[in-house]
Amino acid sequence: MLNAEMAKILLALSDTISEVNMQSKRVGNYTVRFQNPPSVVGYASVVGKKEGEGPLAELFDYVNTDTTFGEKTWEKSESRMQKDALTLAANKANQPISAIEYIFAGDLINQCTSSSYAIREFKIPFIGMFGACSTMAEGLGLAAMAVDGGFSNLAAALTSSHFCTAERQYRSPLEYGAQRTPTAQWTVTGSGCVLLSDNGPGPFITHFTAGKVVDLGITDANNMGAAMAPAAHSTLLAFFQDTDTSPSDYDLIVTGDLGKTGHGIATELLRDDGIIFSGNFSDCGLMVYDLEKQDVHAGGSGCGCSAVVLCSKIIRDLQSGALQKVLFAGTGALHSPVCIQQGESIPGICHAICISSNKQ
Amino acid sequence: MLNAEMAKILLALSDTISEVNMQSKRVGNYTVRFQNPPSVVGYASVVGKKEGEGPLAELFDYVNTDTTFGEKTWEKSESRMQKDALTLAANKANQPISAIEYIFAGDLINQCTSSSYAIREFKIPFIGMFGACSTMAEGLGLAAMAVDGGFSNLAAALTSSHFCTAERQYRSPLEYGAQRTPTAQWTVTGSGCVLLSDNGPGPFITHFTAGKVVDLGITDANNMGAAMAPAAHSTLLAFFQDTDTSPSDYDLIVTGDLGKTGHGIATELLRDDGIIFSGNFSDCGLMVYDLEKQDVHAGGSGCGCSAVVLCSKIIRDLQSGALQKVLFAGTGALHSPVCIQQGESIPGICHAICISSNKQ
Repeated sequence: MLNAEMAKILLALSDTISEVNMQSKRVGNYTVRFQNPPSVVGYASVVGKKEGEGPLAELFDYVNTDTTFGEKTWEKSESRMQKDALTLAANKANQPISAIEYIFAGDLINQCTSSSYAIREFKIPFIGMFGACSTMAEGLGLAAMAVDGGFSNLAAALTSSHFCTAERQYRSPLEYGAQRTPTAQWTVTGSGCVLLSDNGPGPFITHFTAGKVVDLGITDANNMGAAMAPAAHSTLLAFFQDTDTSPSDYDLIVTGDLGKTGHGIATELLRDDGIIFSGNFSDCGLMVYDLEKQDVHAGGSGCGCSAVVLCSKIIRDLQSGALQKVLFAGTGALHSPVCIQQGESIPGICHAICISSNKQ
Repeated sequence: MLNAEMAKILLALSDTISEVNMQSKRVGNYTVRFQNPPSVVGYASVVGKKEGEGPLAELFDYVNTDTTFGEKTWEKSESRMQKDALTLAANKANQPISAIEYIFAGDLINQCTSSSYAIREFKIPFIGMFGACSTMAEGLGLAAMAVDGGFSNLAAALTSSHFCTAERQYRSPLEYGAQRTPTAQWTVTGSGCVLLSDNGPGPFITHFTAGKVVDLGITDANNMGAAMAPAAHSTLLAFFQDTDTSPSDYDLIVTGDLGKTGHGIATELLRDDGIIFSGNFSDCGLMVYDLEKQDVHAGGSGCGCSAVVLCSKIIRDLQSGALQKVLFAGTGALHSPVCIQQGESIPGICHAICISSNKQ
């Protein structure tokens, strides 16, 4: 026969087992809630001259006023930034680079060479991604899955963009001096790296909502913001519904880089669905440059844009307590010059990550 | 005081808890062993005319002798194959496509448009990948992590390649009629899709070894096999060391698509490290075509190559019992025409997946 004390112990043990086994990590239709939210243990941002003249200048880990970063081609310059960001992030985490078990990395350049040529020099398993400007959010989601799933104790999310590689590949060589339209965004020259671990002081990755491909028919390669806005709308709406929260539950909701045009469209689309912001909805493309003074038209863009804003102001503010809970929604235009020439429109995607100073 | 029976119950419960909590999913330095190995619950292969004339013809789900697949551009043809493969795989799994919680997909085409434009039509979260011809193995590894990690009950790995999109992008437009060297491989026109679930009859994904970027300096864009062979060597060696197994423990060890040249090099490199095969080491690039009769030089290649061989002969043989345990090592050349023009060499990568008819 059980006595009362024994029964209590058995009950507690049984509760623990069901909690471990049964606690669903899925919330709603599209969101996962991490059981043991992975902690940011290292992060770094590396940028070029123009970014170093912007409002976040003091918050970047490394500003190089030589946009070549000492390399002979722009592609190598971009790889160099990734190597520097990874090295700085590992230093901050007090970890040797060899302790990193997975690098989730990608970039805008064909075949993601900025990433693969950077990571070639480090003997670390490499998971290549393509998510255009949503890459940092995608990488954070996958790295958090790897850590919370028990597959890794230390995983990196890494990405970059470079104005000179991106302009040549997506629009026209810089030497042409092409005129830019008011809706055009300026590709950030920069790289950001975040290291996640199962053990650390935070901030913590608490939720991940992977996005669907959304395409409302935009065909203007100089208006990426409009192409991405419907994806931001789709993913943010899914996140708020899945988690049963509203914008007022977050100190900051920040899209990847919709820029001025796209951010306005996303705000309207969300308002039509009853999602109202009270001054806490911003965009990395609007934060990285001074739009009045820096001649960047609709704002910043590129994989490096949301990466360097996250890896400077946002994580610092989470660490200092200035921010408690941030919804980071990386947006990407899955834009292909070939498909545009074939008459196709530009699909967008958005992946959302909730980052919190505590594990809730 | 505890009586003996109570003590036994408590001990058993405590064992269960530690097993659930503490069982490390990491084996050795680079490999993960899935705790509840995800099951293949659906798979499909879609190919073009040439593949339908090869030795695996009878095993493909769908052969279309019109290489355009009824579309107006080769890019759209490739997307069409992915849509067909995904639809057929979901049908085989008796699941609506809407039940799929993540699609891990990528391809060879710039900005992975074959994948993003295909998936645009399905409202399913999309995780874009770039792993060149290793994409199916990379996708299986990530999908298995998502399922075993508790983030998904149904996840897809999807990829494709098309001879006409790949040749134009990586080498020269077909209309040029360029001469091919003996080491050149023929890009498979095909798409493969695998659906994984936490509940199914198998075969099961038991292990995943993510690869490092390996580059021994090959610069010949017509010899991808040689560029990839060192990566296959690196990952297979890591897998055998991590799992403390040898080739004789597997019915089949199959590389992604090294072709004749690369497979010979990989065999030699592994032999130098004491890894000896006894007739059970093959390559998807050697299995998909009849090298004597089909004028494909060193064999097949492209993301679709290992995908359609896996999603026809290999999974069927695992289901029928003809194979019990397969080590599937997807190999990719991270080849960039721009970087080659800048004097760079071609890095390779290889991700290995162990697939077994039982959960061990």
